[in-house]
Amino acid sequence: MKLKLLGSDPTMNLAMLAEQCLAMAKAARAAANTLATVRTERKNAWLRAAADRLQMQSGDILAANARDVSAAPGFGLNAAAIDRLALTPSRVAAAAEGLRQIAALPDPVGEVREGGTRPNGLQVLKVGVPLGVIFFLYESRPNVTVDAAGLAVKSGNAVILRGGKESLHSNAAIHAILSSELAAQGLPREAVQLVGTTDRDAVGQFLRMNEYIDLAIPRGGESLIRRVAAEATMPVLKHYLGNCHVYVDRAADPDMAERIVINAKTHRVGVCNAAESLLVHAGIANQFVKRIVEALREKKVEVRGCAETRSFVPDVKAASEDDYAAEYLDLVISMKIVKDLDSAIAHINKYGSKHTDAIVTNDLAASRKFVAEVDSAAVMVNASTRFNDGFELGLGAEIGISTDKFHARGPCGLRELTTYKYVVTGDGHVRN
Amino acid sequence: MKLKLLGSDPTMNLAMLAEQCLAMAKAARAAANTLATVRTERKNAWLRAAADRLQMQSGDILAANARDVSAAPGFGLNAAAIDRLALTPSRVAAAAEGLRQIAALPDPVGEVREGGTRPNGLQVLKVGVPLGVIFFLYESRPNVTVDAAGLAVKSGNAVILRGGKESLHSNAAIHAILSSELAAQGLPREAVQLVGTTDRDAVGQFLRMNEYIDLAIPRGGESLIRRVAAEATMPVLKHYLGNCHVYVDRAADPDMAERIVINAKTHRVGVCNAAESLLVHAGIANQFVKRIVEALREKKVEVRGCAETRSFVPDVKAASEDDYAAEYLDLVISMKIVKDLDSAIAHINKYGSKHTDAIVTNDLAASRKFVAEVDSAAVMVNASTRFNDGFELGLGAEIGISTDKFHARGPCGLRELTTYKYVVTGDGHVRN
Repeated sequence: MKLKLLGSDPTMNLAMLAEQCLAMAKAARAAANTLATVRTERKNAWLRAAADRLQMQSGDILAANARDVSAAPGFGLNAAAIDRLALTPSRVAAAAEGLRQIAALPDPVGEVREGGTRPNGLQVLKVGVPLGVIFFLYESRPNVTVDAAGLAVKSGNAVILRGGKESLHSNAAIHAILSSELAAQGLPREAVQLVGTTDRDAVGQFLRMNEYIDLAIPRGGESLIRRVAAEATMPVLKHYLGNCHVYVDRAADPDMAERIVINAKTHRVGVCNAAESLLVHAGIANQFVKRIVEALREKKVEVRGCAETRSFVPDVKAASEDDYAAEYLDLVISMKIVKDLDSAIAHINKYGSKHTDAIVTNDLAASRKFVAEVDSAAVMVNASTRFNDGFELGLGAEIGISTDKFHARGPCGLRELTTYKYVVTGDGHVRN
Repeated sequence: MKLKLLGSDPTMNLAMLAEQCLAMAKAARAAANTLATVRTERKNAWLRAAADRLQMQSGDILAANARDVSAAPGFGLNAAAIDRLALTPSRVAAAAEGLRQIAALPDPVGEVREGGTRPNGLQVLKVGVPLGVIFFLYESRPNVTVDAAGLAVKSGNAVILRGGKESLHSNAAIHAILSSELAAQGLPREAVQLVGTTDRDAVGQFLRMNEYIDLAIPRGGESLIRRVAAEATMPVLKHYLGNCHVYVDRAADPDMAERIVINAKTHRVGVCNAAESLLVHAGIANQFVKRIVEALREKKVEVRGCAETRSFVPDVKAASEDDYAAEYLDLVISMKIVKDLDSAIAHINKYGSKHTDAIVTNDLAASRKFVAEVDSAAVMVNASTRFNDGFELGLGAEIGISTDKFHARGPCGLRELTTYKYVVTGDGHVRN
């Protein structure tokens, strides 16, 4: 079945929209059933061939992207957003390279995760299997279309992609290549489908179809994610805020602490694992506060601090409660001097977003306590918060970083897009 | 904080109910925060002491249970349901023994599930941590109160228990002992709370509190589970139907096949992993159908079959579409002769409940195909469906069997009540 791009029909009404969404979801389910048992080598062959074709046909992609870029100011995109939207030959090559990297990763499907033989001789294996159908919603950057399709197919899942209106033409050009290469490789074309309309009602339609869709993954602004979480009838893998902390303990090496704070805050300011808040133990404040404020300012970072911070550096702006809860994604950091480790942990568990929080210390007992009591997806000891990332933690490519606790926490790579089944083999075993 | 039993106040209105539910949820969150870092030996000490006290104070429990049993006919319970509700000294002893078994299981909290060192020297560990607060809803059997409390506390979670109205007094007596023993052991009393009202509105209140409750687990009839799934704002670990199949392949040993079918159907008829449907390969039907119908009838099982089944045994009742979808939980089985393995797999994936399905065969290729293509939590080869059970698969005690794919599939033991965090340790690592 070849689905028409939904947006192409000006007479579309809600009933027709619902019908087409349902047809897409059913086609995805059928494709997922086929894909679940496709051998790794065939999925990898598609990934590599699709990578080659993305580069060979980059002219088509760049032409489509040019249409999106020229329309972008009309959607209210600022220069930074347009830069994220724009593709270049090297960005297309990087997306293609991403597919080749996914091909090189181990297949989580069929992976025997645990296994053993029971005292009665029954063999029990826990084997990785795909989740099924994923509904993936995202904004802006068209290379995400490539990543998401590659991760979904490699993990044996069908995916319904719903990109932003800003990147509609780019996504359609990319999807046409990925989809035709699925067919060329004898794989189900509907394993990767693109929602061809930017009608918001289409999202609501898909979010109701828990009979056909196993997981929704929204990636974008907080309002998109909250809408999906509220409306979805299937599980949602989501990431709200990244309000990440660096806590500089009394037993920190000041040079190391400065290096980590500067890296965590300034290495890339617009990402979820960038530091947004700095906590300093009172016992090291005298040595450290002035120095770090100067180092941050040298990197153009605005510091907003507590009263005690300001007693060391009077021209620091006062931090409000809102500052401690903020995910700035900008050259701003909140700062607080805490009286001890317990206060640091309490502050992080109160204001943090359970994403990534770091301690800098050489005190083993302090690091053990921090690791045990800070309730975050990743806790870093003497390392920058920027390391909470699928590549850096060794998962390979990731579809996002989960701030949920259920199913998957932290970076979600291929394995997090799968579940498992028990395979139990006997010789005619019955229960007594 | 000591919470009053909600049902004890006849002037209770909805606002008061909401307030008391919120207070319970907040207290549970605080208890969970404490419990998350309590050492295993202290949790085990509570499990063993609570087991002893349940037996020592079994007189209180039995007296409370007698009140429930005498009120049971008024709630419309039949004799079988009253039997499940009734406690005896040996049933109390069995519940206590369950706690001691949980004490003997490994603690999933703090378990290092994966770990390694990245090329740059960063150590990355994936460490088990509790989910937080669990809202557990269940019906009838008061020993479930003991199991659920034991599993929750051992896995570091606080639990809010909401039992059925039929077992209100029994649950209150059991809860009083478990809770006072938490206090005696210096653990937070609110780690195990019992909702003291059977007001259905209380359930709705808790299901809205995703800020304080991390997981809802409904255990009971399908309508309860569907209500919870529809209303819950937090993840739900659930089990719908157990429409389990046994497929007797052409290459089955008929003796083994009979043994497995009889065990799967009749070992315990009222449980979710009992077989409800029998599929027989056409190539073995001549040898097997008459024999298995007779063997089932000898065990008082009514057989409902397809036209071809009835061509072998004419007095078999005709099976309808509804029969193939039914979870009888009774001495009834549906039966169908299928033309090949593919038809068997297609039938199971269409009518089954993704719970437990078995193949009986000595054909390795057939077993590989069945295992790969049947999309169920547990797939059994030459073994009874009855083995899909936490104890039998080696997980120890279980809180239920999940038919979901997300987070946990199949039996949910201690580890399935936890999540993980990444613990990343460096020597001042920053990203380049």
